[in-house]
Amino acid sequence: MKVRVLVRLKPGILDVQGTSVKRALAGLGFDDVTDLRIGKVIEVDVEATTAAGARQRADEMCRRLLANPVLEDYTIE
Amino acid sequence: MKVRVLVRLKPGILDVQGTSVKRALAGLGFDDVTDLRIGKVIEVDVEATTAAGARQRADEMCRRLLANPVLEDYTIE
Repeated sequence: MKVRVLVRLKPGILDVQGTSVKRALAGLGFDDVTDLRIGKVIEVDVEATTAAGARQRADEMCRRLLANPVLEDYTIE
Repeated sequence: MKVRVLVRLKPGILDVQGTSVKRALAGLGFDDVTDLRIGKVIEVDVEATTAAGARQRADEMCRRLLANPVLEDYTIE
């Protein structure tokens, strides 16, 4: 079963990579970009019989390894 | 208008980061993970009046800067 995990920096945390990319886009003429943030998308294929089971397993993985709870939030889709 | 861009390595391209994380998860007891790939999620806030306009603008950004067409695929949501 496929699960998609999105890991993003928490709202208050400065996103250095996002800020650089926003500036680079402005340099290319994309000055209509008001905000840009970059995170990770992790696509996990888990052996599970139900979607709920797979999500729960992904949630455990996030807590144990995939996300840093001090700096990052995660959502499972 | 908010647009979400997902940038992922193309299917044939070796995902070194994903492979390492999969191995680390196996070491923590998550041996039910059969596949894991890591990409980027880019959340862009564009000044646009319509959703279609914002998507088109994001598509241009991907072609110009956000994605490397040799190695990566992108989807706009």
